[in-house]
Amino acid sequence: MRAQLECFPCYYSQILKTARMLSLSEEQTREAIFRFSRLLPDVPDSATPAGIGRELYLILSELSGDPDPYREIKEQCTRLALDMYPDMKKRIRAAEDPLKEALRIAVAGNFIDFGTTEQVDLKAGLEEILDQELAIDHYGELRGRLEKAGEVLMLGDNAGETVFDRILIEELGKPVRYVVREAPMINDAVREDAVMAGIDRVAEIVSSGCVAPGTIREYCSAEFWPTLQEAELIISKGQGNFEGLSDEPLPIFFLLKAKCLAVAREIGIPQGSILLIKSPHFP
Amino acid sequence: MRAQLECFPCYYSQILKTARMLSLSEEQTREAIFRFSRLLPDVPDSATPAGIGRELYLILSELSGDPDPYREIKEQCTRLALDMYPDMKKRIRAAEDPLKEALRIAVAGNFIDFGTTEQVDLKAGLEEILDQELAIDHYGELRGRLEKAGEVLMLGDNAGETVFDRILIEELGKPVRYVVREAPMINDAVREDAVMAGIDRVAEIVSSGCVAPGTIREYCSAEFWPTLQEAELIISKGQGNFEGLSDEPLPIFFLLKAKCLAVAREIGIPQGSILLIKSPHFP
Repeated sequence: MRAQLECFPCYYSQILKTARMLSLSEEQTREAIFRFSRLLPDVPDSATPAGIGRELYLILSELSGDPDPYREIKEQCTRLALDMYPDMKKRIRAAEDPLKEALRIAVAGNFIDFGTTEQVDLKAGLEEILDQELAIDHYGELRGRLEKAGEVLMLGDNAGETVFDRILIEELGKPVRYVVREAPMINDAVREDAVMAGIDRVAEIVSSGCVAPGTIREYCSAEFWPTLQEAELIISKGQGNFEGLSDEPLPIFFLLKAKCLAVAREIGIPQGSILLIKSPHFP
Repeated sequence: MRAQLECFPCYYSQILKTARMLSLSEEQTREAIFRFSRLLPDVPDSATPAGIGRELYLILSELSGDPDPYREIKEQCTRLALDMYPDMKKRIRAAEDPLKEALRIAVAGNFIDFGTTEQVDLKAGLEEILDQELAIDHYGELRGRLEKAGEVLMLGDNAGETVFDRILIEELGKPVRYVVREAPMINDAVREDAVMAGIDRVAEIVSSGCVAPGTIREYCSAEFWPTLQEAELIISKGQGNFEGLSDEPLPIFFLLKAKCLAVAREIGIPQGSILLIKSPHFP
């Protein structure tokens, strides 16, 4: 999807929020604002929100002097999610439809704001989302496609959420390739985050080649793009992957929380909804 | 005051909000965003929020093709405020301290969002603000200064609010010069808005020379700046004038609602507060 008008104020809010997170000085933050403003008018008209967000985070990361400023936060989130793993497995065992429950847990993983690292908040947040209705639920169709598929390509999103994705992988009953970002981008999962979540025990981990907060065609490696095109069935987590792939004719089911108005309007649901939706361009 | 970090996302939100108000197309709005982004990195480090806001509104006004796109809204607001004039005069007559009541009414005029043109909302809003406590109230000191002053210079803000300012002028008991913007800037009052509010009957109307949403030294005319410097006592309405003049050594009492976090923090009060504050640089 193309960046919407609402995205532009949001980029600047994100600069401020992230700069605080990275303990940048006021002058460094102004520098980030000005550098981003200079490149904004030259961004291609078709650029996705995640594609523009990439530029923003590359500027901030460079100013922070740390190529992986979210390292510690990502590890904390993964540890907290791993602590919750046994309880979630119990939920699956008690569920009438374990696959459906696993999908709900996986979308809950996308819902939780891993900016907070308080376990109590995570647990309370999780309970709340597990009770929330999906605004769009193409579960029946996913289940049908899954039965026929030889394998599944799963596109990861944030570190920590990876643990919830692992639970879903364990219920899919199919070989899975799990896709991570090539290099650190905010708190998005790279290979080592997936390994820390134990995904290497249940799936093959592959990189999209992207250094972007989403899977975006122009940033995918020459090896990965064909992998995506040849995939029988893709489960995609989170907004960033949706933003990059919603216009591509690929066999994707998107599992996400529509955190912002631009994405919610694109899909046609209220902001804040969680959903499992078949791509409008499913071939 | 210098533009704060929070101002930058807010500029982009203002572009979107104003572009909708002016019925600009999506592409025109993008063009406004890109033009503003191009000039942002070259803005002087000491620029005030109102000074940067000026650039933003000049871009939008140019794209709208209308040098005074808020004309109709300003007239509507003034009419609605004039309808409320008799009731407000009644309040003054019933008040124990009419000057204090007039100051409250004048700050209420700054509080009301004149974006709304529903009279019922305006009336309800006014009642609510008249009950609100001032977070800072230097009334006693203003009263003392006023007794000694030969005349008062009053800096206007928005059209419509001008009617509330007239009520204050009528209670000051001193000759007043009322300052308006030189040319249209958003819904700020220019000479004709002040005349429509009846201010010409109670004060001399003068222009600051500014085409900016505030009184800002660099945009004041060569005639007006000395007027400001030689004033015995100044009553300044609204955030824009505060932003432009808070660091100047002038004998000002600011009467405003701290609508945004940046201004509230600068003053040291909660966002949304109303206040009557003596300038920290009062000579």
